[in-house]
Amino acid sequence: MTLNVYLSGEIHTDWRDQITQAAKGLDVTFSSPVTDHDASDDCGVAIMGAEDQQFWHDRKGAQLNAIRTRHGIENADIVVVRFGEKYKQWNAAFDAGMAAALGKSLIVMHQPEHQHPLKEVDAAALAVVQTPQQVVDILIYVLTGKLPA
Amino acid sequence: MTLNVYLSGEIHTDWRDQITQAAKGLDVTFSSPVTDHDASDDCGVAIMGAEDQQFWHDRKGAQLNAIRTRHGIENADIVVVRFGEKYKQWNAAFDAGMAAALGKSLIVMHQPEHQHPLKEVDAAALAVVQTPQQVVDILIYVLTGKLPA
Amino acid sequence: MTLNVYLSGEIHTDWRDQITQAAKGLDVTFSSPVTDHDASDDCGVAIMGAEDQQFWHDRKGAQLNAIRTRHGIENADIVVVRFGEKYKQWNAAFDAGMAAALGKSLIVMHQPEHQHPLKEVDAAALAVVQTPQQVVDILIYVLTGKLPA
Amino acid sequence: MTLNVYLSGEIHTDWRDQITQAAKGLDVTFSSPVTDHDASDDCGVAIMGAEDQQFWHDRKGAQLNAIRTRHGIENADIVVVRFGEKYKQWNAAFDAGMAAALGKSLIVMHQPEHQHPLKEVDAAALAVVQTPQQVVDILIYVLTGKLPA
Amino acid sequence: MTLNVYLSGEIHTDWRDQITQAAKGLDVTFSSPVTDHDASDDCGVAIMGAEDQQFWHDRKGAQLNAIRTRHGIENADIVVVRFGEKYKQWNAAFDAGMAAALGKSLIVMHQPEHQHPLKEVDAAALAVVQTPQQVVDILIYVLTGKLPA
Amino acid sequence: MTLNVYLSGEIHTDWRDQITQAAKGLDVTFSSPVTDHDASDDCGVAIMGAEDQQFWHDRKGAQLNAIRTRHGIENADIVVVRFGEKYKQWNAAFDAGMAAALGKSLIVMHQPEHQHPLKEVDAAALAVVQTPQQVVDILIYVLTGKLPA
Amino acid sequence: MTLNVYLSGEIHTDWRDQITQAAKGLDVTFSSPVTDHDASDDCGVAIMGAEDQQFWHDRKGAQLNAIRTRHGIENADIVVVRFGEKYKQWNAAFDAGMAAALGKSLIVMHQPEHQHPLKEVDAAALAVVQTPQQVVDILIYVLTGKLPA
Amino acid sequence: MTLNVYLSGEIHTDWRDQITQAAKGLDVTFSSPVTDHDASDDCGVAIMGAEDQQFWHDRKGAQLNAIRTRHGIENADIVVVRFGEKYKQWNAAFDAGMAAALGKSLIVMHQPEHQHPLKEVDAAALAVVQTPQQVVDILIYVLTGKLPA
Repeated sequence: MTLNVYLSGEIHTDWRDQITQAAKGLDVTFSSPVTDHDASDDCGVAIMGAEDQQFWHDRKGAQLNAIRTRHGIENADIVVVRFGEKYKQWNAAFDAGMAAALGKSLIVMHQPEHQHPLKEVDAAALAVVQTPQQVVDILIYVLTGKLPA
Repeated sequence: MTLNVYLSGEIHTDWRDQITQAAKGLDVTFSSPVTDHDASDDCGVAIMGAEDQQFWHDRKGAQLNAIRTRHGIENADIVVVRFGEKYKQWNAAFDAGMAAALGKSLIVMHQPEHQHPLKEVDAAALAVVQTPQQVVDILIYVLTGKLPA
Repeated sequence: MTLNVYLSGEIHTDWRDQITQAAKGLDVTFSSPVTDHDASDDCGVAIMGAEDQQFWHDRKGAQLNAIRTRHGIENADIVVVRFGEKYKQWNAAFDAGMAAALGKSLIVMHQPEHQHPLKEVDAAALAVVQTPQQVVDILIYVLTGKLPA
Repeated sequence: MTLNVYLSGEIHTDWRDQITQAAKGLDVTFSSPVTDHDASDDCGVAIMGAEDQQFWHDRKGAQLNAIRTRHGIENADIVVVRFGEKYKQWNAAFDAGMAAALGKSLIVMHQPEHQHPLKEVDAAALAVVQTPQQVVDILIYVLTGKLPA
Repeated sequence: MTLNVYLSGEIHTDWRDQITQAAKGLDVTFSSPVTDHDASDDCGVAIMGAEDQQFWHDRKGAQLNAIRTRHGIENADIVVVRFGEKYKQWNAAFDAGMAAALGKSLIVMHQPEHQHPLKEVDAAALAVVQTPQQVVDILIYVLTGKLPA
Repeated sequence: MTLNVYLSGEIHTDWRDQITQAAKGLDVTFSSPVTDHDASDDCGVAIMGAEDQQFWHDRKGAQLNAIRTRHGIENADIVVVRFGEKYKQWNAAFDAGMAAALGKSLIVMHQPEHQHPLKEVDAAALAVVQTPQQVVDILIYVLTGKLPA
Repeated sequence: MTLNVYLSGEIHTDWRDQITQAAKGLDVTFSSPVTDHDASDDCGVAIMGAEDQQFWHDRKGAQLNAIRTRHGIENADIVVVRFGEKYKQWNAAFDAGMAAALGKSLIVMHQPEHQHPLKEVDAAALAVVQTPQQVVDILIYVLTGKLPA
Repeated sequence: MTLNVYLSGEIHTDWRDQITQAAKGLDVTFSSPVTDHDASDDCGVAIMGAEDQQFWHDRKGAQLNAIRTRHGIENADIVVVRFGEKYKQWNAAFDAGMAAALGKSLIVMHQPEHQHPLKEVDAAALAVVQTPQQVVDILIYVLTGKLPA
């Protein structure tokens, strides 16, 4: 059994690295969005030409990023979505909605203070966790049946 | 041609009423989530029994609300998602993600200051508007081919 | 909004009648399996000829009943599955699995003593209840947003 | 031709080992649920924190196990479901329902005394058998066209 | 519950009339292919122009008939396929294969002498019958739970 | 049997009127794109605000029109696509591709001089015709089995 | 590009061998039903126990064979169905119907005398041929763009 | 992450070679239609026999080519469609429609003078570009997150 895991959401901390490091040796393939914030914002105009208006600047970029994010979500067995402490993060919730509609196993990661506003997202998840280690523990359990010591 | 339209998102202003009033006479059927905030929060425990922890209190309610929201989205031709000025509104973005994954025609409504954080949601939409009247204008045009005077 | 509700499971008590009576006036269409136990057991051989072996006797009947149960589940928005106090009731759990795989909103009804062996079925449900009245309360809430007094 | 086979159901005897041992050398990949009963029951709280109520204790675990079982069923060509002599085994029937709804080739294994209560499950199966060796014989036949001597 | 029933196959006897007559008053909608043999053979060239070769003459007609037959099968809950005593009737078996792949409830009607060559078709059916009355009995049972006296 | 027919393609002649007039009394529901060329071109900016660049002017309009055209194609049983004598008409071929991928019954209407460049589109069609009357003849035949006199 | 090709239909001549031999070196994977006629007829009872009636004897076998044939068809890019000179061959037409409904590229092989009764099957095919060599020529062309010398 | 990219459309310039050359070393698999114009036109009659009428000559060829093009599009993550300066190119727009309906990430390549007639096709695309290098830049960005220097 190989698990394809897509790591969606917050891009300002190293939670993805923590998971992929701790998951070394497991039969897991990880994918994720482009996490270079500037590249992600400007990719559309950098490749397809500048725009005067921010709306179309952003549209060009967001559609280009969608090629990667949709590929990641559609090919995933598990979609992990982390909500950080800051920012609107509507793209994270949007990815969670896509994952739910596509029948993916959804794991949501967030701090307790966001519990209430995330209740609809959590309600679609098979697991709600707070730390990267818990995601790794889940992957280990799903793959091997072993629980953390 | 009948259009089934689901009105998702912000529940603190009367934008849904404005649309349904102005759309009187059009061949449109509207549906929406429960917009009574207290009922929506407490429905789970009111029907299925109290919970000590907020997490499960919210889970019971969110799952019950999901019966209605999924029905609305899955049966819609058009999903309109309004993002208000306040709150996290992750459920709105989650609904937009579901609508996109299910191939629904998505219309997003928000104020200009939210343009950048909503760029991924907007990029999945067939129309991005700011006012209820624009939604009505779109419904009129789609149904009749008539543009606003 | 009309809700199509399929009432699966236990056929020895009048829980279906209780629900349909209490739901009078709601915009709900109910369907259910054939609840005449003898007819359900013997329908296959009654129409298509007797069998010497019980296995094929049952096969003929179960396949005929499947025409009705699949139609009910596939056309339902909500599938309610009640587990009674007695018998194996594997067909009830089978219906719940079909409903889950088809993305139906699943409501499971059972007494507390069955909580542990039903945990996988409950985990796929959007609501777990004990009484017909709770099902009706859910239907009222989903359709109208009103909670029980 | 490679066959992916998911072995669902009873976890108290070594029937899975018998099949995988006897199927050595065949082009078959086997998967199965976690068969360590204690780990399966407690995985949710062990990773995501304790619960006061058994219902939520079980919910957390069952949802975690669903990540593995759904992956197994969705990726299977053949789903084998064994019903043992004891217990309610509603999860086995639930898995069979999912497999049937997803169009998987279903093989059901059980003793003659369970024939009548399992008639709806059997009626959805392409084969009904009693022993692990019969499952292996089927796999050999499907892969090679050879019948048992 | 309304049942949409498509009556496929043999067009030389009045079995369709027998069924629709006997099913009067049931909540059933029947559809069927064009049963006028000459019209069915020549419809393509009659509307779209003559062809020198029989192959293209037949192609034009068969593709036109496919508009109706696919509509009938795709919108059916139940597909009844009757194999008569004569002719190759490959189109009947083709329809049965389509119905099976689309997950329709399949009823096959034929005489005993065709049992062996039809075994693969029968094996995909939920009922195998010999007479129009049996089809009507099945419809009555599925709709009302009543068995023939 | 009701047929939903979407009339796609050329908007400069009255072929749609000819079909709908001649089909009076048939159990057919017709839908079509907005055929007011100016409204179709300018709908986006008229409702959602002007654009400096033609590319985004057109994008806004084309996405709005897509709400209607996708609804029409997705709800159609039959998609008729007419290619006229002039213009690129890539949207007509695009609609035909969508119809083919969605498994709709496709009828293509064009003059003989376009036969070779339309061969891939024709090859996906169940009927290739030259006149509105032929479309009507097909609808009559599909619905009633009657051929033109 | 790898092509998965399922070779369905007539099992009394060596047409499958001719194709697989001539296709050596091409990037093609072939699958097929069990072509040992006796094994195919008796597999069900040989593994799952004898039956008194031919109907159930055949049912057991046909359902077992369906595990293999459905796997082959569902995983195929191209389904080739050969109709021989003799027998009813309804299973061949049934496979063609399944392939058509699943959107597979269908190639039908038969002699000219069967052209008329096979017109509905042919009309669903992307190619109609008479010889194994033509199938190989098609595979070569599809994979390499080369035509026979 | 591997990307499967189908290169559809114009076959008279070397744009496919430019892309595949410049994409060397990337984790991309390219596929494309047969680009030998004569072979593509004549493949049907070369393998399956001559036709008197151009319509059927073309039909035979177009259906054979459809085996390859549908395989390419259905297995692609990204479909790139290039519209050249000349010809009707309706097959290119048809492929774009198929790709859109199948939910593929669509990239459209064309010169500015075709912007207006291609607006519906562009509106379904995640990127609209003019040069092969831009396609390569997009592939590099999607795979690695790196922007062109």
